[in-house]
Amino acid sequence: MEAVSLSAAILERLDSLTKPLGSLGDLEKLAHRYCLLTGQITPPLPRKGMYLFCADHGVVAEGVSAYPASVTAAMVKNFERGGAAINVLCRQFQIEPVIIDCGVGHPTANFALEPAMTIAKAEALLKRGRMLAHNAQQRFDLVGLGEMGIGNTTPAAAILSAFTGLPPIQTVGAGTGLDAAGIAHKATVVGRALALHPSREPLHILANLGGFEIGTMAGFIIAASEIGLPVVVDGFISSAAALVAVKLNPEALETAFFSHRSAEPGHHAMLQAVGATPPLDLRLRLGEGSGAALMINLIETSLRIYLEMATFADL
Amino acid sequence: MEAVSLSAAILERLDSLTKPLGSLGDLEKLAHRYCLLTGQITPPLPRKGMYLFCADHGVVAEGVSAYPASVTAAMVKNFERGGAAINVLCRQFQIEPVIIDCGVGHPTANFALEPAMTIAKAEALLKRGRMLAHNAQQRFDLVGLGEMGIGNTTPAAAILSAFTGLPPIQTVGAGTGLDAAGIAHKATVVGRALALHPSREPLHILANLGGFEIGTMAGFIIAASEIGLPVVVDGFISSAAALVAVKLNPEALETAFFSHRSAEPGHHAMLQAVGATPPLDLRLRLGEGSGAALMINLIETSLRIYLEMATFADL
Repeated sequence: MEAVSLSAAILERLDSLTKPLGSLGDLEKLAHRYCLLTGQITPPLPRKGMYLFCADHGVVAEGVSAYPASVTAAMVKNFERGGAAINVLCRQFQIEPVIIDCGVGHPTANFALEPAMTIAKAEALLKRGRMLAHNAQQRFDLVGLGEMGIGNTTPAAAILSAFTGLPPIQTVGAGTGLDAAGIAHKATVVGRALALHPSREPLHILANLGGFEIGTMAGFIIAASEIGLPVVVDGFISSAAALVAVKLNPEALETAFFSHRSAEPGHHAMLQAVGATPPLDLRLRLGEGSGAALMINLIETSLRIYLEMATFADL
Repeated sequence: MEAVSLSAAILERLDSLTKPLGSLGDLEKLAHRYCLLTGQITPPLPRKGMYLFCADHGVVAEGVSAYPASVTAAMVKNFERGGAAINVLCRQFQIEPVIIDCGVGHPTANFALEPAMTIAKAEALLKRGRMLAHNAQQRFDLVGLGEMGIGNTTPAAAILSAFTGLPPIQTVGAGTGLDAAGIAHKATVVGRALALHPSREPLHILANLGGFEIGTMAGFIIAASEIGLPVVVDGFISSAAALVAVKLNPEALETAFFSHRSAEPGHHAMLQAVGATPPLDLRLRLGEGSGAALMINLIETSLRIYLEMATFADL
C-alpha cells in the first residue's frame, strides 16, 4: 500500500476504536508510526530484541569514571547470568537480550592523547553494525539499542561537543557517579581532546573520539533505517550513536524511536541535536538499554490497544 | 520493623544492586515507596486490581459533553466484554478489572439547577467506597482507580474550582471532545453552579457537585490510606476524587500513587492542589484507569528490578 493511504487507513482504524478521538495521546502516535514502519494496517505483535553493545575505553586512564574499567567485563558476565537491570526488564517484557562484544578488555586508545582508533577501524565498526542490523532483521521486528562500557559517557559528551560546538562543561555529567570535581576534570579532558582532534568530519569525529560500541551502534542504526527495521534508542550513549549516524547519513533515523530523557545533563542537548522528543522522563541514567526496554513495552502496549480494542460498530 | 529502619533497609538493598547509585531514578523511588507501604523489605509481587467506578451525571442535560449519556452504559457493557482500552491494558499487565456501578442509568441531579445529591447520599457514597476498599484489601495488594461517566469532567472541574478558587475557564477542558464554543459553554455552566452552591465545606462540595463515582472513589481512597492499601490515581476525574478525599481527611493520600499528567488542561492545577508530581506524561485523556494501569505496570517493574537484580557481592 502507498504510504499516504496506509497512514490514512491506520488513522481510520484508530478513530474507529471505542474511545474519544485522540484520547490516547502518545500511545496513538506510537501505534500509528510503528504500523507505518511495518507497511501493514494490522501488523503482528513484534518479536523483540535488545542489543547490548559492550566495549572498553582507553580514556578511562584519565580518571573520568567513578568505576574501574574492569567493571565492563564484570557487567557483561552479569548480563550473561541474568542479574543486571536490563535482564529483569527483558524478562518482564519478553525481550531477547543479545550481547555484542565490541571490544571488552580491548579498549580504544586514550583519545585525550591520540585518536581513539584509525579511520579504517571506524569504517570496520560501521560495517559490522550494518551486518548486525541485517542479521537482526531475520529474528526481530523491534530492536532496542543498549550498551555497557565504563567511561563511555566521556566519548559521548565529546561527540556531542564536536558536532554542536557546545563547551564540554555543558555536555559532560556525573556518568556512573562523579562528584563536582570529577565532572570538572572530565570537562577538562574532553576540552583537551577536542583541541587535539580539530576535524569536524563525522567519520573523523567517530575515529578520533570513539568508542567501539558507539561506532557499531551507529552502523546498526544506519542500516536499520535502510532496511526498515524499527529500532529504539536508549539514553546518552545510544543517542550519541544516533547523532553520529544521522551526521553520516541524514536519513539514518527514519526507523528510530527515541525512548526517554536521561538524567545525564547533556542528553537534553543531544536530543535537540537529533530533533527527538521522547515520551518518557523517569530520571534514568543507567544505560544498558533500560529506557529502551520500557519504550519497547510502551510501543507494544500501543499496538495491543490498536489491535485488540473494540470499535464503536461492535457496541 | 520501625518505619525509619525499614526505609534504611530498603535503601541499603537498592544501593547494593549492580548499578550506579540512584541511576534508576524514579524506578528506585517507586520501589522504595511501595516496599515501605507494605511494611516489608522484600514484599511479594502485588496482586493487582483495577476498580472502574461508573456513573451518570444529570448535568449532561446542559450540553456539556460531546457524547450522549447513553454511552456510559454502552461502555460498561464494553468493559464487561473486554473491548475497552482498559481491558487491553489489564490483560497485558495482568490486572483484574472490577466494575463498580455507582449509578449507571441513575444520574445525579443536574447540579446547574439543584444539588447533585443530598448530604446523606454523599455520606452513603463515602461509606460504600470505604467498604469497597476493605473488601479490595482481601484480594489485591495494589489497586488502580479508574472511572467511566459521560459528563464527569464537568463535576471534576467544578470541584477543582470550588476548592481552589480558580475560575471555571481554567478548570474546564474538552473532555471527550468539545470544540472551543463547547468548552466556553461548559465554563459558563460550571460558573453558574458555583454561584448556586456557595458552600466550600468539602462534604457540601461533593453533595452539591457530584458525582456518584467521585464520592465513592473518595471514600475508597480515605479508607485505603487508613488500612495501608496502595492505590493508583488515574487522571482528571480520579484526581478530583483524591482532592475531595484529602480535603475531607488530610492523611487520605498516604498510600496514593499519582500516575500521569492528563491532557485535560485542568489536571495540572489539580495535581498542584494535591501536591502530586506523577512520573508519566503521555498526553492521555481517556480515563478508565488507562494511565493508572501504565503506572501499576511501572511500579511492578520497579519492584521486579529491586527484587531480582544481582548485588555487587554476587559478581
